[in-house]
Amino acid sequence: MSHYDLAKPGSEELVIACVQMEPHIGAKRANVARLIRHVETAASQGASLVVLPELATTGYVFADREEAFSLAEGLPDGETSELFADTAQRLGVHIVTGIAERAGKRLYNSALFTGPSGHIGIYRKLHLWNNENRFFEPGDRGVPVFGTPLGRIAIAICYDGWFPETYRLAAMQGADIVCVPTNWVPMPSQPEDRSAMAATLTMAAAHSNGMAIACANRIGTERGQRFIGQSLIVGGDGWPLAGPASIDREEVLYATIDVKRTRAGRTLNAFNHVLRDRRADVYDPMLGARWPSFQT
Amino acid sequence: MSHYDLAKPGSEELVIACVQMEPHIGAKRANVARLIRHVETAASQGASLVVLPELATTGYVFADREEAFSLAEGLPDGETSELFADTAQRLGVHIVTGIAERAGKRLYNSALFTGPSGHIGIYRKLHLWNNENRFFEPGDRGVPVFGTPLGRIAIAICYDGWFPETYRLAAMQGADIVCVPTNWVPMPSQPEDRSAMAATLTMAAAHSNGMAIACANRIGTERGQRFIGQSLIVGGDGWPLAGPASIDREEVLYATIDVKRTRAGRTLNAFNHVLRDRRADVYDPMLGARWPSFQT
Repeated sequence: MSHYDLAKPGSEELVIACVQMEPHIGAKRANVARLIRHVETAASQGASLVVLPELATTGYVFADREEAFSLAEGLPDGETSELFADTAQRLGVHIVTGIAERAGKRLYNSALFTGPSGHIGIYRKLHLWNNENRFFEPGDRGVPVFGTPLGRIAIAICYDGWFPETYRLAAMQGADIVCVPTNWVPMPSQPEDRSAMAATLTMAAAHSNGMAIACANRIGTERGQRFIGQSLIVGGDGWPLAGPASIDREEVLYATIDVKRTRAGRTLNAFNHVLRDRRADVYDPMLGARWPSFQT
Repeated sequence: MSHYDLAKPGSEELVIACVQMEPHIGAKRANVARLIRHVETAASQGASLVVLPELATTGYVFADREEAFSLAEGLPDGETSELFADTAQRLGVHIVTGIAERAGKRLYNSALFTGPSGHIGIYRKLHLWNNENRFFEPGDRGVPVFGTPLGRIAIAICYDGWFPETYRLAAMQGADIVCVPTNWVPMPSQPEDRSAMAATLTMAAAHSNGMAIACANRIGTERGQRFIGQSLIVGGDGWPLAGPASIDREEVLYATIDVKRTRAGRTLNAFNHVLRDRRADVYDPMLGARWPSFQT
Protein backbone atom coordinates (compact mmCIF):
# COMPACT_ATOMS: atom_id res chain seq x y z
CA MET A 1 0.00 0.00 0.00
CA SER A 2 1.44 3.34 -1.00
CA HIS A 3 1.25 6.09 1.58
CA TYR A 4 -0.44 8.23 -1.02
CA ASP A 5 -3.26 5.68 -1.10
CA LEU A 6 -5.03 7.37 1.76
CA ALA A 7 -8.16 5.74 3.10
CA LYS A 8 -11.06 7.64 4.60
CA PRO A 9 -11.77 6.59 8.18
CA GLY A 10 -14.61 4.13 8.34
CA SER A 11 -16.04 5.63 11.49
CA GLU A 12 -15.41 8.76 13.51
CA GLU A 13 -14.04 7.13 16.62
CA LEU A 14 -11.52 4.47 17.46
CA VAL A 15 -9.97 3.18 20.66
CA ILE A 16 -6.19 3.15 20.90
CA ALA A 17 -4.36 1.01 23.45
CA CYS A 18 -0.74 1.44 24.56
CA VAL A 19 0.87 -1.55 26.25
CA GLN A 20 3.45 -0.69 28.92
CA MET A 21 5.46 -3.84 29.61
CA GLU A 22 8.91 -5.17 30.53
CA PRO A 23 10.44 -7.33 27.81
CA HIS A 24 13.41 -9.49 28.82
CA ILE A 25 16.57 -9.38 26.78
CA GLY A 26 16.88 -12.34 24.46
CA ALA A 27 13.66 -14.04 25.65
CA LYS A 28 11.93 -13.47 22.34
CA ARG A 29 9.41 -16.29 22.50
CA ALA A 30 8.24 -15.34 26.00
CA ASN A 31 8.16 -11.61 25.18
CA VAL A 32 6.05 -12.17 22.07
CA ALA A 33 3.64 -14.47 23.92
CA ARG A 34 3.20 -11.84 26.64
CA LEU A 35 2.74 -9.04 24.09
CA ILE A 36 0.09 -11.03 22.26
CA ARG A 37 -1.78 -11.66 25.52
CA HIS A 38 -1.84 -7.89 26.06
CA VAL A 39 -3.12 -7.37 22.51
CA GLU A 40 -5.89 -9.89 23.21
CA THR A 41 -6.85 -7.99 26.36
CA ALA A 42 -6.83 -4.67 24.52
CA ALA A 43 -8.97 -6.10 21.71
CA SER A 44 -11.44 -7.44 24.26
CA GLN A 45 -11.69 -3.89 25.64
CA GLY A 46 -12.61 -2.54 22.20
CA ALA A 47 -9.22 -1.31 21.00
CA SER A 48 -8.76 -1.32 17.23
CA LEU A 49 -5.16 0.00 17.32
CA VAL A 50 -2.62 -1.40 19.78
CA VAL A 51 0.85 0.12 20.25
CA LEU A 52 3.65 -1.95 21.81
CA PRO A 53 7.07 -0.69 23.02
CA GLU A 54 10.28 -0.25 21.05
CA LEU A 55 12.22 -3.50 20.53
CA ALA A 56 9.46 -5.12 22.52
CA THR A 57 10.17 -8.61 21.20
CA THR A 58 13.90 -8.74 21.93
CA GLY A 59 14.73 -6.32 24.75
CA TYR A 60 16.91 -3.25 24.24
CA VAL A 61 20.39 -3.47 25.77
CA PHE A 62 22.26 -5.77 23.41
CA ALA A 63 25.69 -6.89 24.60
CA ASP A 64 27.09 -6.57 21.11
CA ARG A 65 26.13 -6.52 17.45
CA GLU A 66 26.15 -10.31 17.26
CA GLU A 67 23.50 -10.60 19.94
CA ALA A 68 21.34 -8.00 18.18
CA PHE A 69 21.85 -9.78 14.86
CA SER A 70 20.88 -13.17 16.26
CA LEU A 71 17.60 -11.74 17.64
CA ALA A 72 16.65 -9.71 14.57
CA GLU A 73 14.43 -11.01 11.77
CA GLY A 74 13.59 -10.18 8.20
CA LEU A 75 10.40 -8.15 7.82
CA PRO A 76 7.60 -8.76 7.11
CA ASP A 77 8.40 -12.42 6.54
CA GLY A 78 10.04 -13.41 9.81
CA GLU A 79 8.53 -15.82 12.32
CA THR A 80 7.67 -13.08 14.83
CA SER A 81 5.98 -10.81 12.33
CA GLU A 82 3.87 -13.74 11.19
CA LEU A 83 2.72 -14.23 14.78
CA PHE A 84 1.68 -10.57 14.95
CA ALA A 85 0.01 -10.77 11.56
CA ASP A 86 -1.97 -13.83 12.66
CA THR A 87 -2.97 -12.07 15.87
CA ALA A 88 -4.10 -8.93 14.04
CA GLN A 89 -6.21 -10.96 11.61
CA ARG A 90 -7.66 -13.21 14.30
CA LEU A 91 -8.66 -10.28 16.54
CA GLY A 92 -9.47 -7.72 13.82
CA VAL A 93 -7.04 -5.15 15.28
CA HIS A 94 -4.15 -3.05 14.02
CA ILE A 95 -0.83 -3.61 15.81
CA VAL A 96 2.29 -1.43 15.84
CA THR A 97 5.24 -3.09 17.55
CA GLY A 98 8.89 -2.26 17.93
CA ILE A 99 11.08 -5.02 16.50
CA ALA A 100 14.72 -5.62 15.53
CA GLU A 101 14.88 -5.89 11.74
CA ARG A 102 17.55 -7.74 9.77
CA ALA A 103 17.96 -6.79 6.11
CA GLY A 104 20.89 -8.68 4.67
CA LYS A 105 23.80 -7.71 6.89
CA ARG A 106 22.11 -4.55 8.11
CA LEU A 107 20.13 -4.10 11.30
CA TYR A 108 17.38 -1.53 11.88
CA ASN A 109 15.52 -0.48 14.99
CA SER A 110 12.14 -0.85 13.33
CA ALA A 111 8.41 -0.93 13.86
CA LEU A 112 6.10 -3.42 12.20
CA PHE A 113 2.56 -2.34 11.34
CA THR A 114 0.06 -5.10 10.67
CA GLY A 115 -3.73 -5.14 10.54
CA PRO A 116 -6.82 -7.26 10.00
CA SER A 117 -6.12 -7.43 6.26
CA GLY A 118 -2.43 -8.26 6.64
CA HIS A 119 0.87 -6.45 6.48
CA ILE A 120 0.66 -2.65 6.28
CA GLY A 121 4.20 -1.37 6.52
CA ILE A 122 7.53 -0.94 8.24
CA TYR A 123 9.12 2.10 9.84
CA ARG A 124 12.87 2.33 10.49
CA LYS A 125 13.95 4.62 13.34
CA LEU A 126 15.57 7.73 11.88
CA HIS A 127 17.36 9.10 14.95
CA LEU A 128 19.48 6.54 16.78
CA TRP A 129 20.12 6.97 20.49
CA ASN A 130 23.52 6.38 22.06
CA ASN A 131 24.78 2.77 21.71
CA GLU A 132 22.12 1.98 19.12
CA ASN A 133 24.64 3.56 16.78
CA ARG A 134 26.87 0.53 17.39
CA PHE A 135 24.24 -1.96 16.24
CA PHE A 136 21.78 -0.29 13.92
CA GLU A 137 21.73 1.61 10.66
CA PRO A 138 19.81 4.89 10.68
CA GLY A 139 16.39 4.62 9.04
CA ASP A 140 16.30 5.04 5.27
CA ARG A 141 12.57 5.15 4.52
CA GLY A 142 11.62 8.60 5.77
CA VAL A 143 8.39 8.95 7.74
CA PRO A 144 5.80 6.98 5.79
CA VAL A 145 2.11 7.63 6.46
CA PHE A 146 -0.09 4.59 6.03
CA GLY A 147 -3.70 4.86 4.91
CA THR A 148 -5.93 2.54 6.95
CA PRO A 149 -9.65 2.23 7.60
CA LEU A 150 -8.93 3.86 10.99
CA GLY A 151 -7.30 6.96 9.52
CA ARG A 152 -3.83 7.96 8.36
CA ILE A 153 -1.21 6.53 10.67
CA ALA A 154 2.52 7.28 11.02
CA ILE A 155 5.14 5.80 13.32
CA ALA A 156 8.05 7.29 15.26
CA ILE A 157 10.37 5.55 17.71
CA CYS A 158 11.67 7.07 20.97
CA TYR A 159 14.45 9.61 20.19
CA ASP A 160 12.70 10.45 16.89
CA GLY A 161 10.31 12.41 19.10
CA TRP A 162 13.13 14.80 20.10
CA PHE A 163 13.04 16.11 16.52
CA PRO A 164 9.95 18.19 15.72
CA GLU A 165 10.66 17.46 12.07
CA THR A 166 9.62 13.83 12.57
CA TYR A 167 6.11 14.85 13.55
CA ARG A 168 5.95 17.60 10.94
CA LEU A 169 6.81 15.13 8.19
CA ALA A 170 3.97 12.92 9.38
CA ALA A 171 1.54 15.84 9.59
CA MET A 172 2.45 17.24 6.20
CA GLN A 173 1.57 13.89 4.68
CA GLY A 174 -1.79 13.96 6.40
CA ALA A 175 -1.22 11.77 9.45
CA ASP A 176 -4.07 11.74 11.97
CA ILE A 177 -2.32 9.54 14.52
CA VAL A 178 1.35 8.85 15.26
CA CYS A 179 2.14 5.59 17.06
CA VAL A 180 5.33 5.74 19.13
CA PRO A 181 6.89 2.50 20.32
CA THR A 182 9.52 3.77 22.77
CA ASN A 183 12.16 2.85 25.34
CA TRP A 184 12.45 6.20 27.15
CA VAL A 185 15.33 6.37 29.61
CA PRO A 186 16.07 8.99 32.31
CA MET A 187 17.43 12.28 30.91
CA PRO A 188 20.24 14.01 32.83
CA SER A 189 18.30 17.19 33.63
CA GLN A 190 14.97 15.55 34.55
CA PRO A 191 13.60 16.83 37.90
CA GLU A 192 12.41 13.95 40.10
CA ASP A 193 9.04 15.57 40.78
CA ARG A 194 7.96 16.18 37.20
CA SER A 195 6.61 14.05 34.37
CA ALA A 196 9.24 13.05 31.85
CA MET A 197 10.32 15.68 29.30
CA ALA A 198 9.16 13.09 26.75
CA ALA A 199 5.56 13.91 27.76
CA THR A 200 6.19 17.61 27.12
CA LEU A 201 7.69 16.89 23.69
CA THR A 202 4.74 14.66 22.81
CA MET A 203 2.12 17.18 23.92
CA ALA A 204 3.82 20.01 22.02
CA ALA A 205 4.05 17.92 18.85
CA ALA A 206 0.39 16.87 19.06
CA HIS A 207 -0.76 20.45 19.60
CA SER A 208 1.45 21.99 16.91
CA ASN A 209 0.36 19.46 14.33
CA GLY A 210 -3.21 18.67 15.33
CA MET A 211 -2.48 14.94 15.51
CA ALA A 212 -3.09 12.32 18.19
CA ILE A 213 0.10 10.65 19.46
CA ALA A 214 0.17 7.32 21.29
CA CYS A 215 3.39 6.39 23.12
CA ALA A 216 3.99 2.90 24.56
CA ASN A 217 7.09 2.77 26.76
CA ARG A 218 8.69 -0.20 28.48
CA ILE A 219 9.51 -0.47 32.16
CA GLY A 220 12.20 -2.23 34.21
CA THR A 221 15.99 -2.17 34.37
CA GLU A 222 17.99 -4.12 31.80
CA ARG A 223 21.75 -4.66 32.15
CA GLY A 224 21.92 -1.51 34.30
CA GLN A 225 19.75 0.66 32.03
CA ARG A 226 16.58 1.92 33.69
CA PHE A 227 13.42 2.68 31.68
CA ILE A 228 10.87 5.18 32.91
CA GLY A 229 7.39 4.02 31.86
CA GLN A 230 4.97 6.98 31.73
CA SER A 231 3.34 5.81 28.50
CA LEU A 232 0.72 8.27 27.34
CA ILE A 233 -1.87 9.01 24.69
CA VAL A 234 -2.29 12.64 23.68
CA GLY A 235 -5.17 14.14 21.68
CA GLY A 236 -4.78 16.46 18.71
CA ASP A 237 -5.19 19.45 21.03
CA GLY A 238 -2.02 18.45 22.88
CA TRP A 239 -3.62 17.36 26.16
CA PRO A 240 -3.26 13.81 27.53
CA LEU A 241 -6.26 11.55 27.01
CA ALA A 242 -4.64 8.73 29.01
CA GLY A 243 -1.53 8.67 31.18
CA PRO A 244 1.20 9.41 31.83
CA ALA A 245 1.16 5.84 33.22
CA SER A 246 3.23 4.71 36.21
CA ILE A 247 7.02 4.57 36.05
CA ASP A 248 7.28 0.88 36.91
CA ARG A 249 4.04 -1.06 36.48
CA GLU A 250 2.88 -3.21 33.60
CA GLU A 251 -0.38 -1.64 32.40
CA VAL A 252 -2.46 -0.89 29.32
CA LEU A 253 -3.69 2.64 28.56
CA TYR A 254 -6.82 3.28 26.51
CA ALA A 255 -8.09 6.41 24.79
CA THR A 256 -10.81 7.17 22.27
CA ILE A 257 -9.78 9.26 19.27
CA ASP A 258 -12.24 11.01 16.99
CA VAL A 259 -10.33 11.31 13.73
CA LYS A 260 -12.71 13.79 12.10
CA ARG A 261 -12.68 16.02 15.15
CA THR A 262 -8.89 15.79 15.27
CA ARG A 263 -8.67 17.02 11.69
CA ALA A 264 -11.19 19.79 12.32
CA GLY A 265 -9.21 20.91 15.37
CA ARG A 266 -6.37 22.12 13.13
CA THR A 267 -8.54 25.10 12.23
CA LEU A 268 -8.17 27.50 15.16
CA ASN A 269 -10.28 30.43 13.97
CA ALA A 270 -11.33 32.19 10.75
CA PHE A 271 -7.69 32.94 9.90
CA ASN A 272 -5.56 30.21 11.45
CA HIS A 273 -4.83 26.56 10.70
CA VAL A 274 -1.84 24.98 12.40
CA LEU A 275 -0.47 23.46 9.21
CA ARG A 276 -1.61 25.93 6.58
CA ASP A 277 0.00 28.76 8.56
CA ARG A 278 3.47 27.29 8.11
CA ARG A 279 5.79 29.75 6.38
CA ALA A 280 7.33 27.26 3.98
CA ASP A 281 8.75 30.20 2.02
CA VAL A 282 10.85 31.10 5.04
CA TYR A 283 11.73 27.66 6.40
CA ASP A 284 12.89 26.03 3.23
CA PRO A 285 16.54 27.00 2.80
CA MET A 286 17.64 26.76 6.44
CA LEU A 287 15.94 23.59 7.55
CA GLY A 288 17.73 21.53 4.94
CA ALA A 289 21.03 22.72 6.39
CA ARG A 290 23.35 20.63 8.49
CA TRP A 291 24.61 21.66 11.92
CA PRO A 292 26.91 23.43 12.44
CA SER A 293 26.08 25.96 9.77
CA PHE A 294 28.63 28.34 11.32
CA GLN A 295 31.67 28.20 13.59
CA THR A 296 30.53 27.71 17.19
CA MET B 1 25.49 44.31 12.49
CA SER B 2 25.08 41.22 10.34
CA HIS B 3 23.74 38.15 12.04
CA TYR B 4 26.76 36.27 10.75
CA ASP B 5 28.95 38.61 12.79
CA LEU B 6 28.63 36.42 15.83
CA ALA B 7 30.16 37.67 19.05
CA LYS B 8 31.58 35.42 21.73
CA PRO B 9 29.87 35.95 25.05
CA GLY B 10 31.89 38.23 27.33
CA SER B 11 31.12 36.18 30.42
CA GLU B 12 29.52 32.83 31.09
CA GLU B 13 26.43 34.10 32.86
CA LEU B 14 23.80 36.72 32.33
CA VAL B 15 20.55 37.64 34.02
CA ILE B 16 17.42 37.81 31.85
CA ALA B 17 14.32 39.65 33.00
CA CYS B 18 10.81 39.26 31.56
CA VAL B 19 8.36 42.06 32.27
CA GLN B 20 4.72 40.95 32.62
CA MET B 21 2.58 44.07 32.33
CA GLU B 22 -0.75 45.42 31.09
CA PRO B 23 -0.40 48.01 28.33
CA HIS B 24 -3.46 50.14 27.59
CA ILE B 25 -4.68 50.47 24.02
CA GLY B 26 -3.60 53.73 22.44
CA ALA B 27 -1.91 55.11 25.60
CA LYS B 28 1.53 54.93 24.04
CA ARG B 29 3.25 57.58 26.12
CA ALA B 30 2.06 56.09 29.43
CA ASN B 31 2.81 52.51 28.31
CA VAL B 32 6.35 53.40 27.30
CA ALA B 33 6.99 55.29 30.54
CA ARG B 34 5.80 52.30 32.56
CA LEU B 35 7.85 49.84 30.47
CA ILE B 36 10.96 51.96 30.99
CA ARG B 37 10.39 52.05 34.75
CA HIS B 38 10.29 48.23 34.68
CA VAL B 39 13.51 48.14 32.66
CA GLU B 40 15.13 50.41 35.26
CA THR B 41 14.03 48.05 38.03
CA ALA B 42 15.30 45.01 36.14
CA ALA B 43 18.65 46.71 35.49
CA SER B 44 18.95 47.58 39.18
CA GLN B 45 18.47 43.86 39.91
CA GLY B 46 21.38 42.96 37.64
CA ALA B 47 19.53 42.06 34.45
CA SER B 48 21.49 42.63 31.25
CA LEU B 49 18.70 41.47 28.90
CA VAL B 50 15.11 42.63 29.41
CA VAL B 51 12.17 41.23 27.43
CA LEU B 52 8.90 43.19 27.17
CA PRO B 53 5.54 41.95 25.82
CA GLU B 54 4.26 41.94 22.22
CA LEU B 55 2.89 45.32 21.07
CA ALA B 56 3.76 46.54 24.57
CA THR B 57 3.84 50.18 23.57
CA THR B 58 0.46 50.39 21.84
CA GLY B 59 -1.80 47.63 23.17
CA TYR B 60 -3.04 44.80 21.01
CA VAL B 61 -6.73 44.95 20.06
CA PHE B 62 -6.84 47.64 17.39
CA ALA B 63 -10.32 48.76 16.34
CA ASP B 64 -9.24 49.01 12.73
CA ARG B 65 -6.23 49.42 10.50
CA GLU B 66 -6.31 53.20 10.87
CA GLU B 67 -5.90 52.98 14.62
CA ALA B 68 -3.01 50.55 14.24
CA PHE B 69 -1.43 52.78 11.61
CA SER B 70 -1.70 55.90 13.75
CA LEU B 71 0.07 54.16 16.66
CA ALA B 72 2.83 52.51 14.61
CA GLU B 73 6.24 54.08 13.98
CA GLY B 74 9.16 53.72 11.63
CA LEU B 75 12.00 51.61 13.04
CA PRO B 76 14.60 52.17 14.32
CA ASP B 77 14.16 55.91 13.89
CA GLY B 78 10.78 56.52 15.54
CA GLU B 79 10.29 58.47 18.73
CA THR B 80 9.54 55.37 20.82
CA SER B 81 12.52 53.40 19.62
CA GLU B 82 14.74 56.36 20.46
CA LEU B 83 13.40 56.28 24.02
CA PHE B 84 14.28 52.60 24.30
CA ALA B 85 17.69 53.19 22.72
CA ASP B 86 18.41 55.97 25.23
CA THR B 87 17.29 53.73 28.09
CA ALA B 88 19.47 50.81 26.94
CA GLN B 89 22.51 53.06 26.65
CA ARG B 90 21.88 54.84 29.95
CA LEU B 91 21.42 51.58 31.89
CA GLY B 92 23.85 49.38 29.95
CA VAL B 93 21.18 46.79 29.21
CA HIS B 94 19.79 45.00 26.16
CA ILE B 95 16.06 45.46 25.54
CA VAL B 96 13.70 43.45 23.33
CA THR B 97 10.26 44.99 23.05
CA GLY B 98 7.19 44.32 20.97
CA ILE B 99 6.23 47.34 18.88
CA ALA B 100 3.94 48.24 15.97
CA GLU B 101 6.14 49.05 12.97
CA ARG B 102 5.19 51.27 10.05
CA ALA B 103 7.20 50.86 6.84
CA GLY B 104 5.70 53.07 4.17
CA LYS B 105 2.09 51.94 3.96
CA ARG B 106 2.81 48.57 5.50
CA LEU B 107 2.41 47.57 9.13
CA TYR B 108 4.34 44.82 10.92
CA ASN B 109 3.91 43.26 14.34
CA SER B 110 7.58 43.70 15.19
CA ALA B 111 10.17 43.51 17.93
CA LEU B 112 12.88 46.11 18.43
CA PHE B 113 16.25 45.00 19.80
CA THR B 114 18.48 47.70 21.21
CA GLY B 115 21.54 47.59 23.47
CA PRO B 116 24.18 49.61 25.27
CA SER B 117 25.94 50.33 21.97
CA GLY B 118 22.77 51.26 20.09
CA HIS B 119 20.37 49.64 17.67
CA ILE B 120 20.86 45.91 17.12
CA GLY B 121 17.99 44.78 14.94
CA ILE B 122 14.34 44.27 14.15
CA TYR B 123 12.27 41.12 13.96
CA ARG B 124 8.93 40.98 12.12
CA LYS B 125 6.43 38.38 13.32
CA LEU B 126 6.21 35.56 10.77
CA HIS B 127 2.97 33.89 11.83
CA LEU B 128 0.06 36.27 12.30
CA TRP B 129 -2.74 35.37 14.71
CA ASN B 130 -6.41 35.89 13.90
CA ASN B 131 -7.35 39.56 13.35
CA GLU B 132 -3.70 40.57 13.10
CA ASN B 133 -4.15 39.46 9.52
CA ARG B 134 -6.43 42.49 9.03
CA PHE B 135 -3.77 44.96 10.11
CA PHE B 136 -0.30 43.53 9.60
CA GLU B 137 1.83 42.09 6.85
CA PRO B 138 3.50 38.76 7.61
CA GLY B 139 7.18 39.08 8.49
CA ASP B 140 9.60 39.20 5.58
CA ARG B 141 12.98 39.01 7.31
CA GLY B 142 13.13 35.37 8.38
CA VAL B 143 14.47 34.60 11.85
CA PRO B 144 17.61 36.69 12.23
CA VAL B 145 20.11 35.78 14.94
CA PHE B 146 21.95 38.76 16.41
CA GLY B 147 25.49 38.46 17.73
CA THR B 148 25.85 40.37 21.01
CA PRO B 149 28.34 40.40 23.87
CA LEU B 150 25.75 38.36 25.82
CA GLY B 151 25.55 35.57 23.25
CA ARG B 152 23.59 34.92 20.06
CA ILE B 153 20.05 36.12 20.42
CA ALA B 154 16.95 35.52 18.27
CA ILE B 155 13.39 36.78 18.62
CA ALA B 156 9.99 35.18 18.11
CA ILE B 157 6.56 36.66 18.80
CA CYS B 158 3.59 34.77 20.30
CA TYR B 159 2.03 32.50 17.63
CA ASP B 160 5.49 32.06 16.05
CA GLY B 161 6.09 29.68 18.96
CA TRP B 162 3.38 27.32 17.66
CA PHE B 163 5.72 26.51 14.76
CA PRO B 164 8.74 24.43 15.77
CA GLU B 165 10.41 25.69 12.61
CA THR B 166 10.75 29.15 14.15
CA TYR B 167 12.94 27.84 16.94
CA ARG B 168 14.80 25.47 14.66
CA LEU B 169 15.72 28.34 12.33
CA ALA B 170 17.10 30.23 15.32
CA ALA B 171 19.01 27.21 16.59
CA MET B 172 20.46 26.32 13.21
CA GLN B 173 21.93 29.81 13.04
CA GLY B 174 23.49 29.34 16.45
CA ALA B 175 21.06 31.11 18.76
CA ASP B 176 21.73 30.67 22.47
CA ILE B 177 18.67 32.56 23.65
CA VAL B 178 15.31 33.32 22.05
CA CYS B 179 13.41 36.32 23.40
CA VAL B 180 9.63 36.05 23.01
CA PRO B 181 7.50 39.16 23.40
CA THR B 182 4.01 37.69 23.48
CA ASN B 183 0.30 38.36 23.96
CA TRP B 184 -0.89 34.82 24.71
CA VAL B 185 -4.66 34.44 24.81
CA PRO B 186 -6.79 31.52 26.05
CA MET B 187 -6.81 28.52 23.70
CA PRO B 188 -10.14 26.66 23.22
CA SER B 189 -8.95 23.33 24.59
CA GLN B 190 -6.99 24.66 27.58
CA PRO B 191 -7.95 22.88 30.83
CA GLU B 192 -8.50 25.36 33.68
CA ASP B 193 -6.21 23.51 36.06
CA ARG B 194 -3.11 23.33 33.89
CA SER B 195 -0.39 25.76 32.83
CA ALA B 196 -0.94 27.24 29.39
CA MET B 197 -0.09 25.05 26.39
CA ALA B 198 2.27 27.90 25.50
CA ALA B 199 4.50 26.78 28.38
CA THR B 200 4.59 23.24 27.00
CA LEU B 201 5.50 24.49 23.52
CA THR B 202 8.25 26.68 24.97
CA MET B 203 9.73 23.91 27.10
CA ALA B 204 9.72 21.46 24.19
CA ALA B 205 11.41 23.98 21.89
CA ALA B 206 14.09 24.81 24.47
CA HIS B 207 14.83 21.13 25.10
CA SER B 208 14.83 20.09 21.44
CA ASN B 209 17.18 22.90 20.48
CA GLY B 210 19.32 23.38 23.58
CA MET B 211 18.44 27.09 23.78
CA ALA B 212 17.13 29.26 26.60
CA ILE B 213 13.76 30.90 25.82
CA ALA B 214 12.41 33.95 27.66
CA CYS B 215 8.71 34.76 27.19
CA ALA B 216 7.17 38.04 28.42
CA ASN B 217 3.39 38.01 28.21
CA ARG B 218 0.91 40.78 28.94
CA ILE B 219 -2.04 40.58 31.33
CA GLY B 220 -5.48 42.18 31.48
CA THR B 221 -8.55 42.27 29.25
CA GLU B 222 -8.63 44.65 26.31
CA ARG B 223 -11.81 45.30 24.32
CA GLY B 224 -13.13 41.92 25.42
CA GLN B 225 -9.91 39.97 24.72
CA ARG B 226 -8.40 38.33 27.79
CA PHE B 227 -4.64 37.71 28.10
CA ILE B 228 -3.27 34.94 30.29
CA GLY B 229 0.04 36.08 31.79
CA GLN B 230 2.16 33.05 32.78
CA SER B 231 5.37 34.58 31.44
CA LEU B 232 8.27 32.18 31.85
CA ILE B 233 11.98 31.69 31.30
CA VAL B 234 13.12 28.22 30.28
CA GLY B 235 16.69 26.88 30.32
CA GLY B 236 18.35 25.02 27.46
CA ASP B 237 17.38 21.72 29.10
CA GLY B 238 13.70 22.61 28.70
CA TRP B 239 12.86 23.15 32.37
CA PRO B 240 11.54 26.49 33.70
CA LEU B 241 14.10 28.65 35.47
CA ALA B 242 11.46 31.24 36.40
CA GLY B 243 7.67 31.15 36.16
CA PRO B 244 5.16 30.47 34.85
CA ALA B 245 4.16 33.78 36.45
CA SER B 246 0.64 34.59 37.63
CA ILE B 247 -2.24 34.92 35.17
CA ASP B 248 -3.14 38.47 36.20
CA ARG B 249 -0.44 40.31 38.14
CA GLU B 250 2.15 42.76 36.90
CA GLU B 251 5.51 41.23 37.80
CA VAL B 252 9.09 40.82 36.61
CA LEU B 253 10.70 37.38 36.29
CA TYR B 254 14.45 36.88 36.56
CA ALA B 255 16.67 33.97 35.59
CA THR B 256 20.41 33.43 35.24
CA ILE B 257 21.55 31.81 31.99
CA ASP B 258 24.98 30.28 31.51
CA VAL B 259 25.53 30.53 27.77
CA LYS B 260 28.52 28.19 27.63
CA ARG B 261 26.72 25.56 29.66
CA THR B 262 23.66 25.96 27.44
CA ARG B 263 25.77 25.24 24.36
CA ALA B 264 27.50 22.30 26.02
CA GLY B 265 24.10 20.87 27.00
CA ARG B 266 23.32 20.13 23.37
CA THR B 267 25.71 17.19 23.59
CA LEU B 268 23.72 14.43 25.29
CA ASN B 269 26.27 11.59 25.28
CA ALA B 270 29.17 10.24 23.21
CA PHE B 271 26.89 9.80 20.19
CA ASN B 272 24.13 12.38 20.44
CA HIS B 273 23.83 16.13 19.91
CA VAL B 274 20.35 17.62 19.60
CA LEU B 275 21.18 19.61 16.48
CA ARG B 276 23.83 17.48 14.81
CA ASP B 277 21.50 14.47 14.96
CA ARG B 278 18.98 16.15 12.67
CA ARG B 279 18.33 14.07 9.54
CA ALA B 280 18.51 16.95 7.10
CA ASP B 281 18.76 14.39 4.29
CA VAL B 282 15.26 13.17 5.19
CA TYR B 283 13.60 16.45 6.17
CA ASP B 284 14.57 18.54 3.23
CA PRO B 285 12.03 17.83 0.50
CA MET B 286 8.90 17.62 2.66
CA LEU B 287 9.40 20.52 5.02
CA GLY B 288 9.52 23.01 2.21
CA ALA B 289 6.09 21.81 1.11
CA ARG B 290 2.85 23.69 1.57
CA TRP B 291 -0.20 22.26 3.29
CA PRO B 292 -2.23 20.55 2.02
CA SER B 293 0.16 18.36 0.11
CA PHE B 294 -2.67 15.91 -0.58
CA GLN B 295 -6.46 15.83 -0.73
CA THR B 296 -7.83 15.76 2.81
